Amino acid sequence: MKISAMLGQRFKETPAECKIDSHIFMIRGGYMKRVGEGIYSLLPPGLRIVKKIEKIIREEMNRIDGQEVLMPVAIPATLWKESGRFESVGSELLRFKDRGGVDMVLGMTHEEAVVHLARHTAESYMNYPFMVYQIQTKFRDEPRSRGGLIRVREFTMKDAYSFHTSQEDLEDYYKKCHKAYERIFARAGVPEVISVQSDSGMMGGKIAHEFMLITEIGEDRLVICDECDFRSNMEVAECIVEDIEGEVQELKCVETPHCKTIEDLCEFLSIKPEQTCKAVMFLKKNSLEPVVVFVRGDLEVNETKVQNYLHEEIIPDDNSTDTGICYGFVGALNLNFKKNGTVLFDNSLKGMKSMVCGANKENYHYTGVNLERDLDKPVEYNDFAKAYQGGICPCCGKKTISLCRGIEVGNIFQLGTKYTKAMEMQYIDKDGKPQYPIMGCYGIGVGRLAASVCEAKHDANGPIWPMSIAPWQVHMCAIRPDNEEVAKAANGLYETLQDMGVEVIFDDRKVSAGVMFADADLLGVPVRVVISPKTLGRGVVEVSFRDKSFKGDISLDNAAGEIKKIVKEQLAKFDI
Amino acid sequence: MKISAMLGQRFKETPAECKIDSHIFMIRGGYMKRVGEGIYSLLPPGLRIVKKIEKIIREEMNRIDGQEVLMPVAIPATLWKESGRFESVGSELLRFKDRGGVDMVLGMTHEEAVVHLARHTAESYMNYPFMVYQIQTKFRDEPRSRGGLIRVREFTMKDAYSFHTSQEDLEDYYKKCHKAYERIFARAGVPEVISVQSDSGMMGGKIAHEFMLITEIGEDRLVICDECDFRSNMEVAECIVEDIEGEVQELKCVETPHCKTIEDLCEFLSIKPEQTCKAVMFLKKNSLEPVVVFVRGDLEVNETKVQNYLHEEIIPDDNSTDTGICYGFVGALNLNFKKNGTVLFDNSLKGMKSMVCGANKENYHYTGVNLERDLDKPVEYNDFAKAYQGGICPCCGKKTISLCRGIEVGNIFQLGTKYTKAMEMQYIDKDGKPQYPIMGCYGIGVGRLAASVCEAKHDANGPIWPMSIAPWQVHMCAIRPDNEEVAKAANGLYETLQDMGVEVIFDDRKVSAGVMFADADLLGVPVRVVISPKTLGRGVVEVSFRDKSFKGDISLDNAAGEIKKIVKEQLAKFDI
Repeated sequence: MKISAMLGQRFKETPAECKIDSHIFMIRGGYMKRVGEGIYSLLPPGLRIVKKIEKIIREEMNRIDGQEVLMPVAIPATLWKESGRFESVGSELLRFKDRGGVDMVLGMTHEEAVVHLARHTAESYMNYPFMVYQIQTKFRDEPRSRGGLIRVREFTMKDAYSFHTSQEDLEDYYKKCHKAYERIFARAGVPEVISVQSDSGMMGGKIAHEFMLITEIGEDRLVICDECDFRSNMEVAECIVEDIEGEVQELKCVETPHCKTIEDLCEFLSIKPEQTCKAVMFLKKNSLEPVVVFVRGDLEVNETKVQNYLHEEIIPDDNSTDTGICYGFVGALNLNFKKNGTVLFDNSLKGMKSMVCGANKENYHYTGVNLERDLDKPVEYNDFAKAYQGGICPCCGKKTISLCRGIEVGNIFQLGTKYTKAMEMQYIDKDGKPQYPIMGCYGIGVGRLAASVCEAKHDANGPIWPMSIAPWQVHMCAIRPDNEEVAKAANGLYETLQDMGVEVIFDDRKVSAGVMFADADLLGVPVRVVISPKTLGRGVVEVSFRDKSFKGDISLDNAAGEIKKIVKEQLAKFDI
Repeated sequence: MKISAMLGQRFKETPAECKIDSHIFMIRGGYMKRVGEGIYSLLPPGLRIVKKIEKIIREEMNRIDGQEVLMPVAIPATLWKESGRFESVGSELLRFKDRGGVDMVLGMTHEEAVVHLARHTAESYMNYPFMVYQIQTKFRDEPRSRGGLIRVREFTMKDAYSFHTSQEDLEDYYKKCHKAYERIFARAGVPEVISVQSDSGMMGGKIAHEFMLITEIGEDRLVICDECDFRSNMEVAECIVEDIEGEVQELKCVETPHCKTIEDLCEFLSIKPEQTCKAVMFLKKNSLEPVVVFVRGDLEVNETKVQNYLHEEIIPDDNSTDTGICYGFVGALNLNFKKNGTVLFDNSLKGMKSMVCGANKENYHYTGVNLERDLDKPVEYNDFAKAYQGGICPCCGKKTISLCRGIEVGNIFQLGTKYTKAMEMQYIDKDGKPQYPIMGCYGIGVGRLAASVCEAKHDANGPIWPMSIAPWQVHMCAIRPDNEEVAKAANGLYETLQDMGVEVIFDDRKVSAGVMFADADLLGVPVRVVISPKTLGRGVVEVSFRDKSFKGDISLDNAAGEIKKIVKEQLAKFDI
């Protein structure tokens, strides 16, 4: 394609709304254009990358016996009512009525639609296992879209669903799919993507992994062991603490004027946070009943763990609901609620011989609290705390926990029978009995992956696309195209390369070399070929790599063949 | 792919909701499954056909320098408000609000989105002309979906938009695109698709063509000349009538008791319908003001022509609005409305010397009406009548008009500056002046084309897919796969064909030959290969074509090579 004919503009200025590099470069490079909040149109360079990623995904899904299907974007709400998610999912599920007043949703994920598709279609155990997938538009009404294609409302997703007659079979397939995902990310140029244990969230099911690209700008907090293979999303990472030395002390109620925070309290009493028992307050989202989580003073509460334990959503208690509790001085002893309330204790408090803890009375705390001794009934401890930097690895037991951030570029879930049971999908087993199939589901956001690769592979001037997904393979710059010799040589090379099947973007404009090179940097094509009066004077074209690993002359006579060879060599790196 | 592993079932019974062959076969053959009103999921055979059609379309769009882009499904209503269509388009445009209360629409066509994409992106005349296209999901909230993929609410569409700096340039490109469409339909196996002049409807613009597959089950009525190239949609086909011989007569008011229809009137007065002047009543949709169209009694009124003339929508007058007119006896003389009303005269009345016409008085008609003589002011005649079988061709003048029906599989429009003006998209011309680009747009419904091919190419047992878009190229049936020799030969051939790049669907199930062949007929794959103990006894496989044009034995030893040759030969027919 000739740049002069291509729709799209490239420019220097960073638009105000662009905060991260991939977003900046994909807007500045003319890859996409914002249409609305979290909604983009893709211009040719952006779509070409997306299509190449889709091809890689398709090949890997077919390799593990996936069958491509296509389910609708607009789905009758009846299906989501069957699964219960029409009610349970928040307003990120876009609901609307059609002209006949029928409730509909825009598909944000397709468990319901795929069960509808497979129900009554796979009625014998002989039809199992199978996996179907689609590459289709999804809409998720995110409250906060951000980072260009990193978090959008409308996006192209590959979603796959497998159906099995046993948990073992699902687990086998789950491993296969995990491998396929590793291949996909490696082929897309980001082999550094890692998988972490994750929360299954609104999907249901127990075992789930997210594939993460580690980066400062990631939204997810990750917990990784520097010594062993332990890798987990913060949401589910177990928090293990060392026991604190200490002696049993007498329970005393002491005045602690205005000490509403752990910090104030520690300063006032000259103690360390780990000697305190902190109360963190939430409300159940539906009933607005209070939930108090006690945790060692140096730790934070992990909301996801609390929600998973309660099986319901919680929100931070902003003190605007009259719960009857004494904010700033909440403690485990003599804690009373106006109506109902829930009290939870984190594992970190287990075995603590003596702690400082709120007295549920303005300006007073207890010291010497020993929960086993001082509470009327036995205490149940659970894991509600966040893992922390330098903490103990739940896997190898060393103090080697690191925290970092990542972008989730894919996820896989073992769903179990949640959807097949709710939607009454059954098959007849070998013994003639009806059974519910066991499901897995497997997602990759295509646009987000493209943006993530850009985030991982760029320099100050633009993206450095891997050859496997680059919008074009070769970027030709004809400097002084008004020079007859340049025009002839450049057009000839362009035609020859195209005939050879090389994907070429050809800058044929009458602009300065500076503009051309800046644009080439923004388009991030791996191999650049410059033809100018100067290079022709030497009988060569100048070839350089976008990643700066090579720059040199190639004789004009065999330029096409040599360039094709370079492209093939670079592509071969992704043949895994 | 092995049928045993493929999701989907084939069956004999015709589902009650299926009325036309393509719908029947695509449901019975497991190509798709209904999800809701006008909404389907595609199973592997259906999606494979669709993807092949998409590939053909993509190649032909690229051949005429199209650039593929991707615009959103969910579009902020602001863009549709800019063009005015947020208000002007009916409830087939699905409107909704997002979680923030922002008005949105589901894209049913993308003129607004493409102008948004190209606006400020193509600011110099040097960027022109260009064409961008997408293959994307659309949603059109049809009041009546029907015929499976023929008329759905959610569908995949290729929509292309070209931008030009002169009408001549648009016209040149329009012709190119017309040719590209002919190539697309020929390559998809329906070279018999014709283009007809059409109404531009809600798209705006003046010149438009529809590509039609002629078939009894088509929704569109077409007007075609048997002698010349005249081909038009009924909506816009000019109606030309021969003058009726007659003499000027005296105007008389006669009693015509209960003669409310032309039929009754003709019987009562012993005259022919062409001697009468018929009144056809409509209401303007917005104001409910009456519109009376007078037309010769043997002709019908073409609503589209009336709407185009009035530049507003009309609905039939069902007599429920108090217009002040005397239904059943409406005539051109002394016609009074309660408030405002519009009176129109069709060309067929021009020069009529003497007609019978309602007297605007219960049970009375005038005879001897001569409009020029009897009306106070000069009459303006226009073309409001429907063309009719045996009528006069507006092109060659012979009485050779035929009526038939067709399915619209594609359309092309010259839009002009309707959208660029409304949405303020400009470029700077050679003289430095701002100008509005001139647009064309070009659509093809991918699923509808698949269904139309099926409608055109099938027998009583199922589709007969052209090799170019068939879900697979070869359908292998292993009869008695429990027979070791059959299993070995069949699996061997299956592997070899796949290695050779032939697309094979392999029926490896332990079912009767009858079931296998019925399923093979439903899948409609062009080449069938049967391996059984009997054929192996002869050292051969049996090869037959789905269209019954060939059946014969091929030696097992060189079966793969021969089959590949057959496939290549059949594919070559579509290399145009």
